[in-house]
Amino acid sequence: MTAEPIRSMAFAARQAGILLSASSIDLRNAALLSIADAIRRRLPEIIEANERDVAKAEAEHLSAPLISRLHFGEQKASRVIDGLKALALLPDPLNRVQYASELAEGLTLYRTTCPIGVIGIVFESRPDALVQISSLCLKSGNAVLLKGGREAMETNEALQQAILEGTLHAGIPEGWSQLLHTRQDVDEMLKQDDCIDLIIPRGSNAFVHHIMQNSAIPVLGHSEGICHVYVDASADIPEAVRITVDSKAQNLSVCNAAETLLVHAACADVFLPAVAVALRERGVELRGDKRTRALIDCVPATEEDWHTEYLDAILSIKVVDSLEEAITHINKYGSRHTDSILSQDDAAIEQFMTLVDSADVFANCSTRFSDGFIFGFGAEVGIATGKIHARGPMGLEGLCTYKYKLYGHGQTMADLNAGKFSLTHRKLDTER
Amino acid sequence: MTAEPIRSMAFAARQAGILLSASSIDLRNAALLSIADAIRRRLPEIIEANERDVAKAEAEHLSAPLISRLHFGEQKASRVIDGLKALALLPDPLNRVQYASELAEGLTLYRTTCPIGVIGIVFESRPDALVQISSLCLKSGNAVLLKGGREAMETNEALQQAILEGTLHAGIPEGWSQLLHTRQDVDEMLKQDDCIDLIIPRGSNAFVHHIMQNSAIPVLGHSEGICHVYVDASADIPEAVRITVDSKAQNLSVCNAAETLLVHAACADVFLPAVAVALRERGVELRGDKRTRALIDCVPATEEDWHTEYLDAILSIKVVDSLEEAITHINKYGSRHTDSILSQDDAAIEQFMTLVDSADVFANCSTRFSDGFIFGFGAEVGIATGKIHARGPMGLEGLCTYKYKLYGHGQTMADLNAGKFSLTHRKLDTER
Repeated sequence: MTAEPIRSMAFAARQAGILLSASSIDLRNAALLSIADAIRRRLPEIIEANERDVAKAEAEHLSAPLISRLHFGEQKASRVIDGLKALALLPDPLNRVQYASELAEGLTLYRTTCPIGVIGIVFESRPDALVQISSLCLKSGNAVLLKGGREAMETNEALQQAILEGTLHAGIPEGWSQLLHTRQDVDEMLKQDDCIDLIIPRGSNAFVHHIMQNSAIPVLGHSEGICHVYVDASADIPEAVRITVDSKAQNLSVCNAAETLLVHAACADVFLPAVAVALRERGVELRGDKRTRALIDCVPATEEDWHTEYLDAILSIKVVDSLEEAITHINKYGSRHTDSILSQDDAAIEQFMTLVDSADVFANCSTRFSDGFIFGFGAEVGIATGKIHARGPMGLEGLCTYKYKLYGHGQTMADLNAGKFSLTHRKLDTER
Repeated sequence: MTAEPIRSMAFAARQAGILLSASSIDLRNAALLSIADAIRRRLPEIIEANERDVAKAEAEHLSAPLISRLHFGEQKASRVIDGLKALALLPDPLNRVQYASELAEGLTLYRTTCPIGVIGIVFESRPDALVQISSLCLKSGNAVLLKGGREAMETNEALQQAILEGTLHAGIPEGWSQLLHTRQDVDEMLKQDDCIDLIIPRGSNAFVHHIMQNSAIPVLGHSEGICHVYVDASADIPEAVRITVDSKAQNLSVCNAAETLLVHAACADVFLPAVAVALRERGVELRGDKRTRALIDCVPATEEDWHTEYLDAILSIKVVDSLEEAITHINKYGSRHTDSILSQDDAAIEQFMTLVDSADVFANCSTRFSDGFIFGFGAEVGIATGKIHARGPMGLEGLCTYKYKLYGHGQTMADLNAGKFSLTHRKLDTER
């Protein structure tokens, strides 16, 4: 595709986005149910398209986990349809009054939520992600340009047909959701900073950084999860073993799996042998620093290991002398995603929760809970590892911004300066 | 300054920022008062430094308004000191629980506010801005790298001495605030995306865009204000004249002054002659489209005019046939800063407030009210014209982000999947 069509697509999305921002919640909810109907109706052709994608992936000898994520059959369709119905039941994230204040008599300020506008999202090869992302954008009144994984191209096209059929039928403005097809399309999209308000890239650190370097559009990166479990001196050892195993091995290929284990020297001699047995049972390779290797048999960990998101059955381990050393290690090598302290000492927990500079800081539970569904947000468009706008699992609220509305009765600055009226700054109830 | 020192400065700021994030509100407030004392104590040398800056600016024949903004004497010092004392009285923006939810029995999620971390701010030649920005960052627990205008260099150095003396004396970690000196320093700062969390450039659209194009760090732009006043068919004519004059002429050189006036055709023949007289009395040059020129004597407006922030005694005027045409014009040519509708028709007001895609949308009052002090935020680090994170006047709340804290009692994902406990998603009171 040449540059011109992408520019036109972005412009059409901006136009549709402005209309969508004023649409009623009833219309947006009806459209979500209409998408569910259209997916159900078009399911045979969606499944056929998916079979072609899967056959191609198998012919190209892609990995088994990737092919499993690519697969979209009756079961995943049902889950996607249930998700649409659940989303339609959630309250409207738009037009909420977050703040209200009487600035002066008859001069009232409201801060109300509104959509961000047009969002560009680049996501991986999981076709159900297309429906999840589109439906979150629709519910929050945002127009969206989407680029999915190459491997899922035919499935995504078939799903997109259903999404557009459903929303046009319900009366959502055309242009609100559009698929991009190539990397060149993405590069072109990054230049449309007058039409696109936010880019959400889901992928590796290097990919997210590439996007940030190449666009003047704000970027909300969902990048690597170099998540840590820190076992404090006062940890309950059997519980710490269970949580470490869950954080590392319950699902190896997810961003909220732990990659590094930090262990306080005071409990390392008891904890490390116990956890090593449990992790080896799950087939996890252990890579330790010198003090770890003095206590359990494992491969030496290098500087590179502390920086690595394995997404695999490997765990790096380091013994530390203090809570402070653990916090410093996490702030240096972590990816500001999710880090968990296992401790019975409330003061240590509070220090960890305050000083670890990550979106999600956990105490005495698994890093695997860093998830939009678990958090109760329904779903997520990503786990934001940056610090601006939204952090952690990003659901409907993260897809909204706000605007200030000021209602007056003829007030001017000249009159204020002349003392004809004065500022009251009286905080009001946010119910209008 | 070479690249290395900027890198070291950013690293030192990150270290100081982490400590500052855990500092008590009492410490931060004491530090604000300690800055006020230090400015009072060092005032003679600050005023001497300012006299040298002003003498240099006069020798270089800088404009009178610029020299007036550059001036820092006893009166501005008193205002700055009052500002510091007022800021110390505001509530702590940190550690506020925004959201609390019981995810499952004994598994409790809190979303609490925390500082952004390290902020890089480039601001114009107004020395009082240095104190305002630094103090807002300090109160919100952020470390800051600052680059002020070249013209105010000596004054800024003297003020910074006072700021650092005050905060070090109070016990704030060294490195929390540092001054940059050259444009090369700024270019180098833009590369420190592993240490700096946010850049706030205050300046022209072109300058803000240059920063966005040249950094992987998130940017919160305070750029141009191409603000509109739209006079609706149903406007109260005398009030509309007063508000238009105030929006344009009460202060010509500020970003919240109006640059374009849109007038509904139904009232143009009555309103335009009246406003023309009032604006000409204030020395404002009028530039109109064809229909405006048919009603009042004025210079022809070109396409360029609709895009221009004059910051001067010039106003462009266009007659529109409908509210929709006015909204479309504003969304096309405006800078998403502040736009005001003057109307007696509530439905028209609501349509304008919803569909105009700007941070601040006003009804029946002056665009000049778009200001952190007027809004009741004490002060502002800028007026954010982007849509991500913060919009409009950006005070203490805009300088914070949040983190999710999850407190458990040994819960694992494996146990959840095995049905050993279940999600409750019970919303909790945000008081802990």
